[in-house]
Amino acid sequence: MHCMKIVTLAGGIGGARFLRGLLRAEPEAEITVIGNTGDDISLFGLRVCPDLDTVMYTLGGGINEEQGWGRAGETFTVKEELLAYGVGPSWFGLGDRDFATHIVRTQMLEAGYPLSAVTAALCDRWKPGVRLIPMTDDQVETHVVVDDPEHGRRAIHFQEWWVRTRAALPAVSIAAVGADDAKPAPGVLEAVEEADAVLFPPSNPVVSIGTILAVPGIREAVAAKTVVGVSPIIGDAPVRGMADACLTAIGVETSARAVAAHYGAGLLDGWLVDEADAAVAATGVDGIEVRSRPLLMSDPDATAAIARAALDLAGELS
Amino acid sequence: MHCMKIVTLAGGIGGARFLRGLLRAEPEAEITVIGNTGDDISLFGLRVCPDLDTVMYTLGGGINEEQGWGRAGETFTVKEELLAYGVGPSWFGLGDRDFATHIVRTQMLEAGYPLSAVTAALCDRWKPGVRLIPMTDDQVETHVVVDDPEHGRRAIHFQEWWVRTRAALPAVSIAAVGADDAKPAPGVLEAVEEADAVLFPPSNPVVSIGTILAVPGIREAVAAKTVVGVSPIIGDAPVRGMADACLTAIGVETSARAVAAHYGAGLLDGWLVDEADAAVAATGVDGIEVRSRPLLMSDPDATAAIARAALDLAGELS
Repeated sequence: MHCMKIVTLAGGIGGARFLRGLLRAEPEAEITVIGNTGDDISLFGLRVCPDLDTVMYTLGGGINEEQGWGRAGETFTVKEELLAYGVGPSWFGLGDRDFATHIVRTQMLEAGYPLSAVTAALCDRWKPGVRLIPMTDDQVETHVVVDDPEHGRRAIHFQEWWVRTRAALPAVSIAAVGADDAKPAPGVLEAVEEADAVLFPPSNPVVSIGTILAVPGIREAVAAKTVVGVSPIIGDAPVRGMADACLTAIGVETSARAVAAHYGAGLLDGWLVDEADAAVAATGVDGIEVRSRPLLMSDPDATAAIARAALDLAGELS
Repeated sequence: MHCMKIVTLAGGIGGARFLRGLLRAEPEAEITVIGNTGDDISLFGLRVCPDLDTVMYTLGGGINEEQGWGRAGETFTVKEELLAYGVGPSWFGLGDRDFATHIVRTQMLEAGYPLSAVTAALCDRWKPGVRLIPMTDDQVETHVVVDDPEHGRRAIHFQEWWVRTRAALPAVSIAAVGADDAKPAPGVLEAVEEADAVLFPPSNPVVSIGTILAVPGIREAVAAKTVVGVSPIIGDAPVRGMADACLTAIGVETSARAVAAHYGAGLLDGWLVDEADAAVAATGVDGIEVRSRPLLMSDPDATAAIARAALDLAGELS
């Protein structure tokens, strides 16, 4: 019997927690994670990859469990000193342990290594138990056009919108700058082609999964496989984060049904919704098999059961 | 009466401590410090300027008083994390507070600012009470040729020789790589020309003062002024550091007399030696006025008295 091959597309916290459940549900599987790099940002001359790091720290045992991102036992001496020099931004929480990751990454990138090789090198330390590949080695950055009461309509980096303004400025539009010309990182398309199933964790459908799918070639490769997604929306609200602000920006209603329809039957084969959305399962979404079950990733066992259900549905549909 | 203008050339710890005494002795003077950058090094993709920082931290109240370099209250989280990634060197002690300085510096350098502008920006925070200018904006790095028992004869960075081997590998030769093509940083020659006196603190005559003088134009400008030096050698040993290893490498005896003769009467007008070297003062050094007095910078008052004596001798000789 062959070892099951699973590909997941993943953003940050939600994706990382789902992956922890998936590893628990299917410890023998060969899991490849295609990580979102659209919210990468250069700060203080260092390249920061928040989603890749959240996956790496979470699966490698280094995550701050309470906040879901950043390192456990973190301190903020470097950031405080930078602010003493008048060097910000102050709104992005880089800790001392985290700084080391960005220093290593930046040094390798400047030496000419592609991000995929850098990520593999960092994972040599963390041993996340999955193969973590950035969606692309090219620079793709999500920018958000906002109507800023002070500065008028302008585009700001996703992180500035998300972290500094807490997505409180309504987004006029969201763009993955550079995505059109990006190529999937080495191994991405091969992993998808060889996969028995592709899973979408309850990551942000716009700025995480949507950005990964915006890299030319990835959507087509994924669409050719059995794809099961886990709804990031329960009732009319995101399980966590501010996905509603992103959905509104692209004209999609914040509901489990609307997100499934947004992905579409051409991409998605199965869709898990929460029991609160049993009505969606009852009426269905055109061409997509919808099942309802508890979706709160409240503890490792609950999360593993969600992952198990996604795999079972994929097995049924393939 | 015009405000006294003083220029000092300075290395790290000895220079910084002397400067603190000079500020105490002559608080109204306009003091320009020409800092050695020959022991600058790039580590982890960051530009580190140990001597400039030691002067800045010491005069700005941020120095670790016990060790004489690095920040007070320092922690080493970033370094430990870098080592956890397998990224060294482990022998260079960069603390978290210090890292912030190098991050700001590197970011400004990469944005195109010359080191002199970067240094001025960093000093905006520290307010050292002197004008601190790097000897040059060009890259000059001191390298040391050693006979390495493991790797044969090879050139290593000064810091590797000084910090990693504690200067235990005998130096075959010492070179300030890049000095020949370097230009004095903006303001250096002007400050020397306008100076009432140029002082050499008890810094290393080879790899600190010697390196500064190796930048074309600086030696000639300094030689035209009244120059008084403070011997870094008492008896037959350096007051601190391993200046003897450097002097041996260039064929100069480790003695107050030999160092004065090495600078030469063409450069030096006055020379302060310790009471232990009263014989040098008694017999004199050709063309140089030598005075003996206590030279141990044991506390701020003692250091201020040394600086006062150097200024008085300069006044007498000008």
